[in-house]
Amino acid sequence: MKAYEIREANGIDSLSLIDQPNPKPGHGEVLIRVRATSLNYRDLAIVRGGLAGMLKTPLVPVSDGAGEIAEVGAGVTRFKKGDRVAGIFTQCWLAGPPIQNMYATSLGGGVDGMLSEYVVLAEDGVVHIPAFLTYEEAATLPCAAVTSWNALVTEGKLQSGDSVLVMGTGGVSIFALQFARMIGARVIATSGSDAKLERLRKLGASDVINYKTNEKWDARVIELTDGQGVDHVIEVGGPGTLPRSINAVKTGGTVSLIGILTGAAGEINPMPILFKNARMQGILVGSRQMFDEMNRAIEVNKLRPIVDRVFPFSEAREAYRYLESGAHFGKVCIAI
Amino acid sequence: MKAYEIREANGIDSLSLIDQPNPKPGHGEVLIRVRATSLNYRDLAIVRGGLAGMLKTPLVPVSDGAGEIAEVGAGVTRFKKGDRVAGIFTQCWLAGPPIQNMYATSLGGGVDGMLSEYVVLAEDGVVHIPAFLTYEEAATLPCAAVTSWNALVTEGKLQSGDSVLVMGTGGVSIFALQFARMIGARVIATSGSDAKLERLRKLGASDVINYKTNEKWDARVIELTDGQGVDHVIEVGGPGTLPRSINAVKTGGTVSLIGILTGAAGEINPMPILFKNARMQGILVGSRQMFDEMNRAIEVNKLRPIVDRVFPFSEAREAYRYLESGAHFGKVCIAI
Amino acid sequence: MKAYEIREANGIDSLSLIDQPNPKPGHGEVLIRVRATSLNYRDLAIVRGGLAGMLKTPLVPVSDGAGEIAEVGAGVTRFKKGDRVAGIFTQCWLAGPPIQNMYATSLGGGVDGMLSEYVVLAEDGVVHIPAFLTYEEAATLPCAAVTSWNALVTEGKLQSGDSVLVMGTGGVSIFALQFARMIGARVIATSGSDAKLERLRKLGASDVINYKTNEKWDARVIELTDGQGVDHVIEVGGPGTLPRSINAVKTGGTVSLIGILTGAAGEINPMPILFKNARMQGILVGSRQMFDEMNRAIEVNKLRPIVDRVFPFSEAREAYRYLESGAHFGKVCIAI
Amino acid sequence: MKAYEIREANGIDSLSLIDQPNPKPGHGEVLIRVRATSLNYRDLAIVRGGLAGMLKTPLVPVSDGAGEIAEVGAGVTRFKKGDRVAGIFTQCWLAGPPIQNMYATSLGGGVDGMLSEYVVLAEDGVVHIPAFLTYEEAATLPCAAVTSWNALVTEGKLQSGDSVLVMGTGGVSIFALQFARMIGARVIATSGSDAKLERLRKLGASDVINYKTNEKWDARVIELTDGQGVDHVIEVGGPGTLPRSINAVKTGGTVSLIGILTGAAGEINPMPILFKNARMQGILVGSRQMFDEMNRAIEVNKLRPIVDRVFPFSEAREAYRYLESGAHFGKVCIAI
Repeated sequence: MKAYEIREANGIDSLSLIDQPNPKPGHGEVLIRVRATSLNYRDLAIVRGGLAGMLKTPLVPVSDGAGEIAEVGAGVTRFKKGDRVAGIFTQCWLAGPPIQNMYATSLGGGVDGMLSEYVVLAEDGVVHIPAFLTYEEAATLPCAAVTSWNALVTEGKLQSGDSVLVMGTGGVSIFALQFARMIGARVIATSGSDAKLERLRKLGASDVINYKTNEKWDARVIELTDGQGVDHVIEVGGPGTLPRSINAVKTGGTVSLIGILTGAAGEINPMPILFKNARMQGILVGSRQMFDEMNRAIEVNKLRPIVDRVFPFSEAREAYRYLESGAHFGKVCIAI
Repeated sequence: MKAYEIREANGIDSLSLIDQPNPKPGHGEVLIRVRATSLNYRDLAIVRGGLAGMLKTPLVPVSDGAGEIAEVGAGVTRFKKGDRVAGIFTQCWLAGPPIQNMYATSLGGGVDGMLSEYVVLAEDGVVHIPAFLTYEEAATLPCAAVTSWNALVTEGKLQSGDSVLVMGTGGVSIFALQFARMIGARVIATSGSDAKLERLRKLGASDVINYKTNEKWDARVIELTDGQGVDHVIEVGGPGTLPRSINAVKTGGTVSLIGILTGAAGEINPMPILFKNARMQGILVGSRQMFDEMNRAIEVNKLRPIVDRVFPFSEAREAYRYLESGAHFGKVCIAI
Repeated sequence: MKAYEIREANGIDSLSLIDQPNPKPGHGEVLIRVRATSLNYRDLAIVRGGLAGMLKTPLVPVSDGAGEIAEVGAGVTRFKKGDRVAGIFTQCWLAGPPIQNMYATSLGGGVDGMLSEYVVLAEDGVVHIPAFLTYEEAATLPCAAVTSWNALVTEGKLQSGDSVLVMGTGGVSIFALQFARMIGARVIATSGSDAKLERLRKLGASDVINYKTNEKWDARVIELTDGQGVDHVIEVGGPGTLPRSINAVKTGGTVSLIGILTGAAGEINPMPILFKNARMQGILVGSRQMFDEMNRAIEVNKLRPIVDRVFPFSEAREAYRYLESGAHFGKVCIAI
Repeated sequence: MKAYEIREANGIDSLSLIDQPNPKPGHGEVLIRVRATSLNYRDLAIVRGGLAGMLKTPLVPVSDGAGEIAEVGAGVTRFKKGDRVAGIFTQCWLAGPPIQNMYATSLGGGVDGMLSEYVVLAEDGVVHIPAFLTYEEAATLPCAAVTSWNALVTEGKLQSGDSVLVMGTGGVSIFALQFARMIGARVIATSGSDAKLERLRKLGASDVINYKTNEKWDARVIELTDGQGVDHVIEVGGPGTLPRSINAVKTGGTVSLIGILTGAAGEINPMPILFKNARMQGILVGSRQMFDEMNRAIEVNKLRPIVDRVFPFSEAREAYRYLESGAHFGKVCIAI
């Protein structure tokens, strides 16, 4: 079988297509014929040399993938051959509160990931996917969608009628917009492109803000919420955007700290968190139980993930470069 | 001003139209020019002589009403003349957990209600109504809608993707259907009329069951949920339907005990509650905070209450009789 | 090895001591050298012929047991030889909400239990026990203690300062008293024996009621709580005591429906649940996560389970008879 | 009557004792004969010139006070003459989530405070105090105790068996230690004085750390918790201690951001919050409902606040200086 591998991470060209024997599922394990994967910023960071010291070497990259069960090992009870499935991001976080050292069992990080024709996973680390989704659509779920679900639903306890601020058009932000609308919440969205803002509006954002022409977007958020700020900010920028996010959140509101698109460096004054009785919640994907609950909601509401573009397996590097360009709206996938 | 009054409750004809001086708002009070009211089964039960001993006598009936602020008393801060408002069902339950003896301050029960041209209420017992609603629509909210919101959202913590069973086409059930759909939950609905079932489906029920042609509707609910039962039952029937409701709920699920349309008499075996790790939750309307949160969700989602028919003030008795007939689908209103 | 077995359940004499080869742990399994077990009413009900149709036949009875790991099977990661452990009641309920058909994997019910010198369990179905407890003490935890923890803490969200009513001196009630006091709640306790009431008071009950000399114990509970009733009732009696329990609970309070000591037959009028905005919560033991959280609390607070009496393995039948007599205060154990 | 007043805040000497006519309670108001007050760092900050622009001028300072109802205004229903009471910190936050602009109605800040023989407050802004407490003890509750309760119980949902880190021997930290122990949690405490550490241990801390001799106290906390960190940090230091606090908290844990004893200046890197799936929660005192629930728990557990020293009314300035010295252990009070 074919798979991509990173031996020494120093850029997208570190991705090598290799050939190796098909793996066999052991006791309690399943063999998955991967049909599609999707990329996240974490995958880009890893191929560029990020997260060094926390990664398996050599590494089959990419956390997100969906496919069908090709074979089940002894003792497997939750799956049978032919089942349509996806792997869960943190293989050991099944339910309950976050576990320590979750990096150690994250797909495409601490353990091999999904950019491979075949993958063996413990059956505990796998979920059924909604029947109406294509493999590409299902492949978008494990990281970005579960992260948004955890932020808004599990930890955020978002209520219908609440307001949410989402930033840009990456996977987490678009899923957050879709989930918030599915739940009956109001969404304010930002982007640097008027064309993208128009698409965000079509997906259900009640208000949009171009942060290039409106640099003080936090003030605009406050204005749009009668001087109160939003109930929840899905913060994917990191220290570069966080001060404005905290300013844009309501007294008693929540900032979900998720991404570091503006870079991990930089510091913030934490005092406004105190003066607003607000909460800053770190969100590192989520558990299998969250994934299952989310899938149920996706199924009931026939919610379709936004797939921007699907690359063939042979063009995995181009898929990474497309993600790097920032031109995308939603998820970038690779069919296998 | 004109108002209806019940001196001795022994049927719908006990409603008398009387004339009395306009009331004046005292310190912390507001005068409301009532524009519309809506009826609930409780109003019917009261005029028939139910809840005896718990009622003010003589009583201006009806808990639900909406109108505009005609005058504010000294010290009022939350309202000004012209504001569009509704009274809250339990005048003293503002926030937090349920209060004792809530009957004592329920409108149209322990204190005078809204079937009157003018009403004086403490400003604490009043809420602003969504701007896009007519007075008739807003008048449907205080009892039935807040009850459904409390059952599903506040106490029920309903999650997108959960399943809900609603019974019939009364106010609580229709609001529960609408709120559940607004939140992204799946709804199964029952009725004795195929025509009504068709309307329930159009409002978003994924599945409907005619309980006349399908007496074992609980078995059908289980079938429709892959043998599991629903997450939540909005039980408005009382002891007569409760055993089937408990059978239709999932392991770990919730039965919201709300109404007694099949009569208050009758007993049930509570053991299935234990064997299913289930919960039976009594719901007696809700607090002002719930009402405000619900209004916010109604506003964001532009959710329109289903008004079946509006009667003029002079035909209040006909409105009661129409409710009594059971022919309605949604709420029965009286314009004032 | 020796074990007790029930082939045909028709009374305590159905318990036969048998001899059979030592079991071997398979993949993901552990072999436990059982050192102590404790009895619950369910064990008594089963040996008398209860729960017929839901049981494995022949059956090694008893859900509760503690011992040490004697051997680990391939792939086991959570335990090593010599670890002190207990089995969890429902082998398949690890975390999250209650699972369907939990009877099918309950120890000493759907699968073989702990009244045996050696037992093989999946490592997932086993927990570490607090280091300071004896094996007898630890053997009291899996059913009664986890049930009380689930009722009060996980589902009940009991808060310091809340009030709890416990009934009698069985295992669940005593644990509920101890846990409630550990959390800073007030406890009112009932018993038919003044001597036992005195012991309940020493364990921390602020008030006690003899239900034999004070038949209307619900009225006394209301009196002791300034006319309000308690926040939480730990109901172990079933339909025979439930109406008074519901009367004794506060507006908005919770009745945890746990046991059926007064028999499973009988019906109740559910309407007071509605009129009180109260909640009736079925509690069927709990998950492994609850067990682990409870053990942590027991460890921090050095809470000692109340062991009434320990019988030797050869006198298991006498242990059952002692439980049957109702003379106990706390748990009845069997050392192995 | 006599009262202290700040006209221009530039140090403790800005406190002037003035004489003015006794106030009269209006509609819905009560007159309180203040018997004791207690000081918080906020009071010190205000007299030094902090919070400028957010304060009433001239200002009767001090948020915390207890006394008895001397007279009730028209329409008052919750109190009668002679009732023992305390004012709530934020006069307008009665229940539910935090309100905007709570500074505007905070006692001794946006409105006049309690350092006065008589005070008039809206009855809504007053609570009954536990009967067994002295006025000095009750006067310690409104700010520090409610803050700790909100952090640990209301927002923190602290569970028995959880671990909590408290810093130093100020009011909030000591109450947090006492409440955590009352709930059955484990407490690790820091101080720069071995004598104080000994007292913290006597109050129930299982482990203590001298941060002067053990500068890397976060590493020690991790060591004491088997490499995991604590479930909850009560952070009263501000940016100066926050990075170590975040390091000392467990994956999925909570840092309650409460005080700024090390100064409000300074920035932190927020990324560890993300990588730990942790939560940082700003806590600005709490609502009346929290105060009432806390009082109930204090009453049930007969928990006695730690009063370090009581100064007479005439020596209010000395009380401020004593607080400023940092020599205290628990609360500094002024009898009136």
